Amino acid sequence: MSKRRETIRDFSKEKINLEDIIYVLNVAREAPSGANKQPWRFLIVIDEDIKKEIRRYCESVERKFHENAPDWFKKWLAERGISWRKPFLEEAPVLLLVFADIRAPYAIQSTWLAVGYMLLAIEEKGLATVTYTPSRIKWFNEFFNLPDHYKLQTILPIGKPADTKYQKQPRKSLEELIINKEILEKIRL
Amino acid sequence: MSKRRETIRDFSKEKINLEDIIYVLNVAREAPSGANKQPWRFLIVIDEDIKKEIRRYCESVERKFHENAPDWFKKWLAERGISWRKPFLEEAPVLLLVFADIRAPYAIQSTWLAVGYMLLAIEEKGLATVTYTPSRIKWFNEFFNLPDHYKLQTILPIGKPADTKYQKQPRKSLEELIINKEILEKIRL
Repeated sequence: MSKRRETIRDFSKEKINLEDIIYVLNVAREAPSGANKQPWRFLIVIDEDIKKEIRRYCESVERKFHENAPDWFKKWLAERGISWRKPFLEEAPVLLLVFADIRAPYAIQSTWLAVGYMLLAIEEKGLATVTYTPSRIKWFNEFFNLPDHYKLQTILPIGKPADTKYQKQPRKSLEELIINKEILEKIRL
Repeated sequence: MSKRRETIRDFSKEKINLEDIIYVLNVAREAPSGANKQPWRFLIVIDEDIKKEIRRYCESVERKFHENAPDWFKKWLAERGISWRKPFLEEAPVLLLVFADIRAPYAIQSTWLAVGYMLLAIEEKGLATVTYTPSRIKWFNEFFNLPDHYKLQTILPIGKPADTKYQKQPRKSLEELIINKEILEKIRL
């Protein structure tokens, strides 16, 4: 479990079994949540025209966002070849939109905890994804005619990975992440 | 993976292998995060006196919080036997405090996604936990002398479960969680 595959941004257009998506959602259902309110809501997009619309909207916002990003972040994005273009929104066979019902206590936290479950379930099924969160989300409520208390948290494009080679992103060491370093002496690392 | 054990609030006082905690943290390290900033930070508490202090502080805050909670929540808590008392903060052999460095983009979301990974890793090791978030968190920065940009997200008490019988909390059905119900007809459920 500790050797996860990396985030994937290039998808094969090959169809996937929708039963795998149901499996992923059933794993999410098992996540704990504030007051057991289970604030996560899902919208499954497989329609090509709707995927195109979502891509078009996100790219228009991203383009502006990239232009206005702080310099360190522009540099970071450029180094990783991340641009305002989001072809995965159209190429992945399934877009799983994850909303939080923000009327629930700890709705954002609970929903992202469930996203963690979902990423591991997606991997378990041999599928690939990336957590993509557009910087403006109100459009989705209008486009899908959803109540204001549903807030888009992330879009998970799900599919089989294309044959792109990825370089694993560097990770901080345990020594950097553990605040009380003296505990490390008590543990054989 | 979709048949998770429930949240556990009663722990055996039996010691656990600290290498299992390291395994859990190494799983968290694999989580994706906004701009790969890896904003999660961990504080591992095994000292009995520090656990006592944390319990004492949390119970004092919880007591006030329970008294001022909205009626539906008071009722919900009472039905589940949840009181302001938090013995698990002292009884679990390890408290894993999870902080977010909120200077990173999407720090809260990324950290809770990693908490999702951690819960599944804890279960994989045959251990039990509950995500407990005190309603006031500034005290932790003072007590542990941490910079203001570290914000406590949750305390994970980790240990072996006591022999308490739990009733599984009810879960919403997929039909309740999937917004676009028409998709259900396309999927053999």
